[in-house]
Amino acid sequence: MRETPSTPAPRPIVGMVGAGQLARMGWQAAISLDIGLVCLGSAGDAAARAGAPLMEGSGRDGAALARLAAGSQVLTFEHELVDLAALGRLEAQGVVARPSAAVLSLAADKLRQRRTLDTLTGVEVPAFTPVTSIGELEEFAAAHGWPLVLKARSGGYDGRGVWICDDGRAAGQAFAEAAAAGLELYAEQAIDLAGEAAVLVARSPSGEVAVYPAVSTYQRDGMCRWVTLPASLPDGLDKKIGRLARTLAEETQLEGLMAVELFLTREGGLLVNELALRTHNTGHIHTEAAVTSQFEQHLRAVLDLPLGLTSPVVPAAAMVNIVGPADGSDPATRLAAALAVPGAHVHLYGKGARPGRKLGHVTVCAQTSEEALALAQEAADRLEGNG
Amino acid sequence: MRETPSTPAPRPIVGMVGAGQLARMGWQAAISLDIGLVCLGSAGDAAARAGAPLMEGSGRDGAALARLAAGSQVLTFEHELVDLAALGRLEAQGVVARPSAAVLSLAADKLRQRRTLDTLTGVEVPAFTPVTSIGELEEFAAAHGWPLVLKARSGGYDGRGVWICDDGRAAGQAFAEAAAAGLELYAEQAIDLAGEAAVLVARSPSGEVAVYPAVSTYQRDGMCRWVTLPASLPDGLDKKIGRLARTLAEETQLEGLMAVELFLTREGGLLVNELALRTHNTGHIHTEAAVTSQFEQHLRAVLDLPLGLTSPVVPAAAMVNIVGPADGSDPATRLAAALAVPGAHVHLYGKGARPGRKLGHVTVCAQTSEEALALAQEAADRLEGNG
Repeated sequence: MRETPSTPAPRPIVGMVGAGQLARMGWQAAISLDIGLVCLGSAGDAAARAGAPLMEGSGRDGAALARLAAGSQVLTFEHELVDLAALGRLEAQGVVARPSAAVLSLAADKLRQRRTLDTLTGVEVPAFTPVTSIGELEEFAAAHGWPLVLKARSGGYDGRGVWICDDGRAAGQAFAEAAAAGLELYAEQAIDLAGEAAVLVARSPSGEVAVYPAVSTYQRDGMCRWVTLPASLPDGLDKKIGRLARTLAEETQLEGLMAVELFLTREGGLLVNELALRTHNTGHIHTEAAVTSQFEQHLRAVLDLPLGLTSPVVPAAAMVNIVGPADGSDPATRLAAALAVPGAHVHLYGKGARPGRKLGHVTVCAQTSEEALALAQEAADRLEGNG
Repeated sequence: MRETPSTPAPRPIVGMVGAGQLARMGWQAAISLDIGLVCLGSAGDAAARAGAPLMEGSGRDGAALARLAAGSQVLTFEHELVDLAALGRLEAQGVVARPSAAVLSLAADKLRQRRTLDTLTGVEVPAFTPVTSIGELEEFAAAHGWPLVLKARSGGYDGRGVWICDDGRAAGQAFAEAAAAGLELYAEQAIDLAGEAAVLVARSPSGEVAVYPAVSTYQRDGMCRWVTLPASLPDGLDKKIGRLARTLAEETQLEGLMAVELFLTREGGLLVNELALRTHNTGHIHTEAAVTSQFEQHLRAVLDLPLGLTSPVVPAAAMVNIVGPADGSDPATRLAAALAVPGAHVHLYGKGARPGRKLGHVTVCAQTSEEALALAQEAADRLEGNG
């Protein structure tokens, strides 16, 4: 009675630049919709370990981008390390990239991003200036006071390429360090934060826009440690964040998914800290907490499929990152202990353990975000060997 | 700043006999927990198309089972087409199979299953008898009346191997047909149904048991067409079903996941129709509707990890199967129309389209099961080209 195999109709193929954990979770979403995905990366990368079709290569290599484009309906991205000039040339030849090289350049060059955001009505950013000398830095400090933040224009993530400087001596050191690494810098006013938040927005080529509920985010050493939903916000700010996300998606003519990281000031103000033109750590929580995961939404957006509902399906949730412990041990060896925590959704990325490296996350849904956070933290602690 | 690759610690590997859609969705769950999975099947099978590691072969081949076992911590199953004698010999050599060959034999031989169920306290089944001649069939009909149901002891699924006979002439025809196919038969009393329901239960080797909420199921031509949650049941019957599922898991010493298909009689009675010793079509709804999907629960159970919560996360949900339309067209070509239905979770299995073949399913969560069913049916209709 066994049925003979037959071949399905051709599926759309998304060419994903990058094969890390974001591509891995994108692959899980692609399996559900039976959408083809090809990742550009290395065989040891998280997505390749999950069986996602792999093209060996780097987004920094124009020839690799061309090869990926040749087999895909659309190119999209899980990180910003892309040869944008090469991508632009491919677009001129008819390759479809979502987001486009022009939009991606906002993420690749944070100074350019700041300048663009600064021109948009209704969008506020911290005071900033490019700095190429200690003199310019001292001048900015004189105007905005210490501490200040030095940031690399490009290449930074998870706290890399960011220096918080308490005084001129620290700034001088950071400046020398950055110069030695060949990094261009800009200085930014240090904000007295009431908190941080993030919001995800998808926009399809047809112009459909879908905004997720805002989340509260908590950083340590520049890396996102946990996220809670609903966001803890002053009255009315959630609506303002939603409008802001829509404005940013429309003004940048986004095609795809964008994460907006936000500073909440003690005066109740809202500043845009940074945009990411891709799925984002602060959006993992929506896999369990919202109708549509960010990974499925990303695929829908870049293929110009109807966008999915972003509404929450649970009263509250929390996501905690799993970070490689100091002893170098692999959290995956402690999976059983974490799964004993009621409601723990464990996501392990299949990456080799190294101290401080993001290796997975845990999401828990509950009646309150406090309850969810306590459980998710408990599961993460157990995975990290602190439980 | 790119981190150099490193190798994760070894993960447990589950050897899955079968590589169809159940293994495919099992693979998605395995990716989240970073559990290794190797499927026994063919390269064109649904799980292999999703990148699940594949071992070419059949569960009916003892040598293939031995090869699969050699690379796995535990063997488990997505279907019943297994050489149980060979599996039993492997177990005698120390191979761990969950469920064991002894428990699996309940699913492989439905007459044996009926006889076992009939001996359990608190478990009722429809009247039945093995039949090897028209004379025995007429005798059973004389006692229980027409119509009656003829069933093959093994090899049937989705309506195959089942004949509903209104009279002696129809029964004679079915009998001849079955005899020509070399099938052994049993006769069963046709029940005047108030409805059908199903329940999933997991039991781990440690003895932990987790029962899912019951669902209502709707069949057409012997194939499950849709499922709703919560089940539409007379007062108190949900608790009775929960107790029954636990009894069945404990009495059979189940290790793994079991689906129990139930008949609801017009008199408010509850009869066990059939057991499946694996993930099951009637459990797909829990992927979105419950804390833990049946696919993750299956992996947890066979690896003796703590079982996940089975409680619903939404008030109601419905799952509708996507079946190959009569014109042979591929539902995947109509994905965009289906995704326009609010809240539609589309699961396509990557199988070639053929009329009547199960190709995917849609789940929708809502405030009521009626609302969820209307939306899920709308999305399924669009995929099948009837929308």
